[in-house]
Amino acid sequence: MAPTTSLRLISDRDELSRELRAARAAERAVGLVPTLGYLHAGHAALIRQARAENDVVVASIFVNPTQFGPTEDFERYPRDLVRDRALAGAEGAAILFVPSVETMYPEGPENQRVWVDPGELARHLCGASRPTHFRGVATVVAKLFNMVSPDRAYFGAKDAQQAIIIRRMAGDLAFPVEVQVVPTVREPDGLALSSRNVYLSPAERAQATSLKQALDLARDRILAGERGALDIEARMRREIERLAPLGRIDYVTIADPDTLQPIAGLIEGDALIALAVYFGSTRLIDNMRVVLEHGRPRFL
Amino acid sequence: MAPTTSLRLISDRDELSRELRAARAAERAVGLVPTLGYLHAGHAALIRQARAENDVVVASIFVNPTQFGPTEDFERYPRDLVRDRALAGAEGAAILFVPSVETMYPEGPENQRVWVDPGELARHLCGASRPTHFRGVATVVAKLFNMVSPDRAYFGAKDAQQAIIIRRMAGDLAFPVEVQVVPTVREPDGLALSSRNVYLSPAERAQATSLKQALDLARDRILAGERGALDIEARMRREIERLAPLGRIDYVTIADPDTLQPIAGLIEGDALIALAVYFGSTRLIDNMRVVLEHGRPRFL
Repeated sequence: MAPTTSLRLISDRDELSRELRAARAAERAVGLVPTLGYLHAGHAALIRQARAENDVVVASIFVNPTQFGPTEDFERYPRDLVRDRALAGAEGAAILFVPSVETMYPEGPENQRVWVDPGELARHLCGASRPTHFRGVATVVAKLFNMVSPDRAYFGAKDAQQAIIIRRMAGDLAFPVEVQVVPTVREPDGLALSSRNVYLSPAERAQATSLKQALDLARDRILAGERGALDIEARMRREIERLAPLGRIDYVTIADPDTLQPIAGLIEGDALIALAVYFGSTRLIDNMRVVLEHGRPRFL
Repeated sequence: MAPTTSLRLISDRDELSRELRAARAAERAVGLVPTLGYLHAGHAALIRQARAENDVVVASIFVNPTQFGPTEDFERYPRDLVRDRALAGAEGAAILFVPSVETMYPEGPENQRVWVDPGELARHLCGASRPTHFRGVATVVAKLFNMVSPDRAYFGAKDAQQAIIIRRMAGDLAFPVEVQVVPTVREPDGLALSSRNVYLSPAERAQATSLKQALDLARDRILAGERGALDIEARMRREIERLAPLGRIDYVTIADPDTLQPIAGLIEGDALIALAVYFGSTRLIDNMRVVLEHGRPRFL
């Protein structure tokens, strides 16, 4: 990791604009990495890729109240700005933008009237149990796009539905931003990195590998020639029930990555295999993308 | 009117970006005047104000399919690019941006998935009879903001609900754009200019002044000390019925200009007095703003 001397911590919108105006005048490309903070190696990979593809990297940390449901973990979401600052600086971010709720919602989150609405895309998968989540995510990312005017923005593949919605938002609303999706970073035993993994008890943590194991099972079945989406989903569910008695499945779905509609028949072309499992009140997600070309599967 | 030699007609998004990049590199302020075309003196006033406040004015013409309802006048909406070009050039616009439907909706309007949703603001007034109109307007204006990155954008006061929603959108989504609302331009007899006035028969045209006359009546009643919103609305309705037997009232509403919620009690502070009347299938709108300061009314 390189030294962090040049990282600027900014919480004010006008100061951010001034700082970026100079970069833009010098035609330097700007990469944005929006996060909720409590950074881990997954975020580090986002910042690293942003650094490789841009001159200036802005990482943002904002625990956005409008993307949490009333019973969710907004208040207890883990925060550690000192560590985050060190990590962002070490990975080469130039600016760590840490706005207050007042900066992002000048009239208060409860007075947000105009939203970015992902419509049907927000109703499937995670949206079924988190009905206002993606509206909150899309809206706050639109605000960040407007505050930073990045050339590129970076999102983790672990949050597949989020990445699909944000990429679609950029296209549908003509944001001049390239949305880059960066592969999921995993623990050695396969668990996808997430800031929420700290909530898990040791017993839950041990069983949390079942999500990746279910995805591996799906990959094996597809490699063996199976194509029936509902059959594969059923096998994945049984695998999780077998491996994780402490878990409670929210969903296991094979969906069209363009519309996020569940696939009821055979997997053809491109498919997103996604799942969410509760351990206590902690909800873990994971996914895998399969692309069939001339009947041959590739996994992403 | 000045000569039009320097107006550039652009329909391509990349060409627009290139053209504006030079302006931005020179730190020239950009004003945007989004229109549906068939320009009249009201649009001229928008372009003139934009010209006075910016270095470069982009006027856009786009008859946006997603803001028309299925039974509305999208197909027959009046178009006259030759005249529009002359007027925009004469008023000092530098660029007339005339995108195709494919440019604004690369995947087709029917495949727009992520929208800008004005929520409750879109349900009152004109939104009651045009349920998807303001979602279409807000979405296409967001696209134009992202394509042009204007410093300021100009909207007519005649479309009061639109101006309120767009200003709110700019704030709520952090668009770095100042939204300017320009006073309504009227015919000598008081009728607010609208591209749709050409639809009126001579008899309808004569009775169309009733909208402004009803607003004048409201102003007189408020000056006389009346404050009961529902009473004033009822008087306005009777006035229109008296003056315009060919008209059919869509709504007459006195509303809070911040929330657009109808005021049921007394007018206090700031109020929007708005109305819509059908003549045949042509729908005309008009409005007036009243601001009470220490009980004294000012009209805008």
